[in-house]
Amino acid sequence: MNGAQSLVQTAVASGIEVCFANPGTTEVTLMAALDAMCGIKPVLCLTEGVCAGAADGFGRMRDWPALTLTHLGPGFANAIAQVHNARRAHSPVVNIIGQQATWHVAGGSVLDMDVEGLARSVSDWTCSSGQAATLGDDLRQAIESAAGQPGQVATLIVPADCQWEEGGRVELARAVRKLRSPNPANIEAVAARLRDSSRVLLLLGGAALREAPLRLAGEVAARSGARLFCETFPARAERGRGRPLLTRLPYFPEQAQPILASASDLVLVGTREPVATFGYAGGPRRLVPPNVAVHSLASAEENPERALAALLELLPKRSPVTRDEPAPPPCPSGALDVHSFGGVLAACQPDHAIVVDESATSGGPYALLSHGAKPFSHLNLTGGAIGFGLPCALGAALACPERPVLALQADGGGLYSTSALWSLAREGANVTVVVCANQAYRILRMETSRAGHRLGHASTTLTDLSTPRVDWVALARSLGVPAERVEDATDLAGRLETAFEEPGPHLIEVPL
Amino acid sequence: MNGAQSLVQTAVASGIEVCFANPGTTEVTLMAALDAMCGIKPVLCLTEGVCAGAADGFGRMRDWPALTLTHLGPGFANAIAQVHNARRAHSPVVNIIGQQATWHVAGGSVLDMDVEGLARSVSDWTCSSGQAATLGDDLRQAIESAAGQPGQVATLIVPADCQWEEGGRVELARAVRKLRSPNPANIEAVAARLRDSSRVLLLLGGAALREAPLRLAGEVAARSGARLFCETFPARAERGRGRPLLTRLPYFPEQAQPILASASDLVLVGTREPVATFGYAGGPRRLVPPNVAVHSLASAEENPERALAALLELLPKRSPVTRDEPAPPPCPSGALDVHSFGGVLAACQPDHAIVVDESATSGGPYALLSHGAKPFSHLNLTGGAIGFGLPCALGAALACPERPVLALQADGGGLYSTSALWSLAREGANVTVVVCANQAYRILRMETSRAGHRLGHASTTLTDLSTPRVDWVALARSLGVPAERVEDATDLAGRLETAFEEPGPHLIEVPL
Repeated sequence: MNGAQSLVQTAVASGIEVCFANPGTTEVTLMAALDAMCGIKPVLCLTEGVCAGAADGFGRMRDWPALTLTHLGPGFANAIAQVHNARRAHSPVVNIIGQQATWHVAGGSVLDMDVEGLARSVSDWTCSSGQAATLGDDLRQAIESAAGQPGQVATLIVPADCQWEEGGRVELARAVRKLRSPNPANIEAVAARLRDSSRVLLLLGGAALREAPLRLAGEVAARSGARLFCETFPARAERGRGRPLLTRLPYFPEQAQPILASASDLVLVGTREPVATFGYAGGPRRLVPPNVAVHSLASAEENPERALAALLELLPKRSPVTRDEPAPPPCPSGALDVHSFGGVLAACQPDHAIVVDESATSGGPYALLSHGAKPFSHLNLTGGAIGFGLPCALGAALACPERPVLALQADGGGLYSTSALWSLAREGANVTVVVCANQAYRILRMETSRAGHRLGHASTTLTDLSTPRVDWVALARSLGVPAERVEDATDLAGRLETAFEEPGPHLIEVPL
Repeated sequence: MNGAQSLVQTAVASGIEVCFANPGTTEVTLMAALDAMCGIKPVLCLTEGVCAGAADGFGRMRDWPALTLTHLGPGFANAIAQVHNARRAHSPVVNIIGQQATWHVAGGSVLDMDVEGLARSVSDWTCSSGQAATLGDDLRQAIESAAGQPGQVATLIVPADCQWEEGGRVELARAVRKLRSPNPANIEAVAARLRDSSRVLLLLGGAALREAPLRLAGEVAARSGARLFCETFPARAERGRGRPLLTRLPYFPEQAQPILASASDLVLVGTREPVATFGYAGGPRRLVPPNVAVHSLASAEENPERALAALLELLPKRSPVTRDEPAPPPCPSGALDVHSFGGVLAACQPDHAIVVDESATSGGPYALLSHGAKPFSHLNLTGGAIGFGLPCALGAALACPERPVLALQADGGGLYSTSALWSLAREGANVTVVVCANQAYRILRMETSRAGHRLGHASTTLTDLSTPRVDWVALARSLGVPAERVEDATDLAGRLETAFEEPGPHLIEVPL
């Protein structure tokens, strides 16, 4: 058994099901090993950012890694931005990078780059394999690092000679790191504050946004009067009717600060102290005011469900309060703007959809209106590297083929990853892509105004996507995805219904 | 004057004309400075790889840098693979990366990445600015580093507060590094070998492939009987009728080795000892056999024109030989395959075209047939990071608006950078894109066979671009570029003629 075969068999034995790949010459032996072994689905992505974004989406929905397979420095470099998103999402991802034969590394080839440096810059765990005999064990460690809780990015660099040489051994990933038990002292401290103050704000993130801890957090809020907020960029939040209502902490500091300032205490559950995405002239340098006490009920490494359950035990019981269940949203008709757009989506999204949301400035109303939508998993951009939506939707659809996926895609970000449409078509993925075509980098225009600048020639040019207009319908069809453009809200509702009924991907262009 | 204004004014004063940009919030002050200052053309690229590839193409044609402007770690990460190509091409490129305010770097923002580490991994010169007062001087150094000979990649990281703070000072780049004088001892040694041996092989690369040194090299060959070869991946070679005939050193080691082994001496002019792109099982570990003496007439840092002129002085004069001028290639008709394809291109390309060649496996016959084409500049993939063709064509067209650009684009590589088509349309660039649509990663199928593997399910899937078929005509039109598909050689010749006559970009899909 050669090294490549031991790697593939270790992956299969360890429950790896999918490999999002864009291979090159240093990966041909791995391809041959995939040929010889059933159990791993090879999914070709036309750019490596799509590989990484898809693995991110897969990991978020499965809590077990998919593989990416990329080619040397240039191939992996193309993936880095999307790997960064995955890392910030705590998605379990295992990257395999093919490398030159050990005796040809840094040998003057045109492809020479610092592959290990690039890998380390964006991975929680990195290893360069040195021989065929340890490849299986290297992969075992990578999978165990990635699949632990919280999920991590593990990157394994595999020289070509380690693939083709004999002596490979199959290993099995099993000893996976669990979330630690939370610190009882922290729980007691938070309980005391909840008893003493009516102005406690619970900020939930990460693993705390899954079904069970969310329900407990809802109960904590009901018993204590605390307010529930959600981090600004949640990787995966279980949302919709029947789930506790969370408000997302706003993006702009001037909107987030008053909320934080209104609290006596900020209690972090599964997340870190919130930080502004950008520093602006005049500050603030820190979002949380100094007079607000910050407590960590459970860090990202600690079990939020246990922490919340233990917290609940320390709170006085109250007679069950009938929660105000948000009404199912009515479906708007008439002209399309971001409000009617959000309303149609919230009304029409099917039960237990996975909503991959890179809607950017077009998604504000949807984020609120979808509180009353049918239960769904809401996946968001976590690391600020735009272009995550279409790849993530691909990965989520392959992870959960029985669930419909709705990808809300801003046009600017969508143009980063259009080739993901081709993979959606090839895989027959049940993804409905809705392109929010406002033909601008609108967020950047807002930021320019906020900075006190008037849009001149350069800043207009550099934020304009209308010249020429991108024809998303033709673009999607050119890559094998059926597509339509809609003109009003009723039209959108009808197209959504058809798209969810028919198998395979669809794209709907919505002028906004 | 704030820092951003001093940076933009330093750029204008130093002869920078174009900025290929995809900005974000940390770049709004730079955008405002561009608004306030004429002289730099802002060119929006929809992904950062296009920015970098375009700057590469611009630099190759102008020998003076364009700027790229990208956003933090994720933005620059997307550019890295194409920056690598530029670096290998010795293209002068200045990358400006916007960074968080100095007090917000590594502050926990979702966008936190090791920007400086990423920049260093692919740049010859890197600097993180620390204050507004030195921004102008930092850029001066960057331009001088990039614009020296040979060209380099210089990357300047500009924190947002250094942009918006006052105290900027305008500087002027002027002290640019020239190629060094070659070593007379090396020239004498080579002259001695040329007098003694009829089996000397001159391998030209880099700056030696420009007009003047090429003519001298042709004269050296005529006087000495030495054979002229060109490095496998020349950044820019002046070719076609009237220029000395160079054969490119083949890509596969088993084809390059016999050529090298037939020589007594290998003389390097403007390039390094050739190295196989990949190490294969069974070797070879070095391309040049041990019994072939290797001489450097001029390194990449030394002036090849002076070296060749001095060499010529040391060679016995001979009566001028009438060179066999390659015949103008006839234009084939009939069915299209890689031979007729190459023939039509060579026959139809207009005078003094810039041919940006990422034709991969479809371009072999063209490389030979174009020896007899009208004089042209031939730009090639230098660093193995595919997707360079369309961006490089954009940059070359903006560098030389008076010259027609022909982009020979393999479909696999083209799918990496499709959004460059949009920028071609927006800029009205005179680029004729010819897509070699063989619907496969054919090179990878060849490499799989060479490694002794039969294509199974995985390796077929991972090298197949036919399911679904990409409709390049619809794809180009969706991004604003007029496009047609051709069916035979005559059709291709006609479409090429039209495309070169009409202003603005065109795309021609050629099924191969």
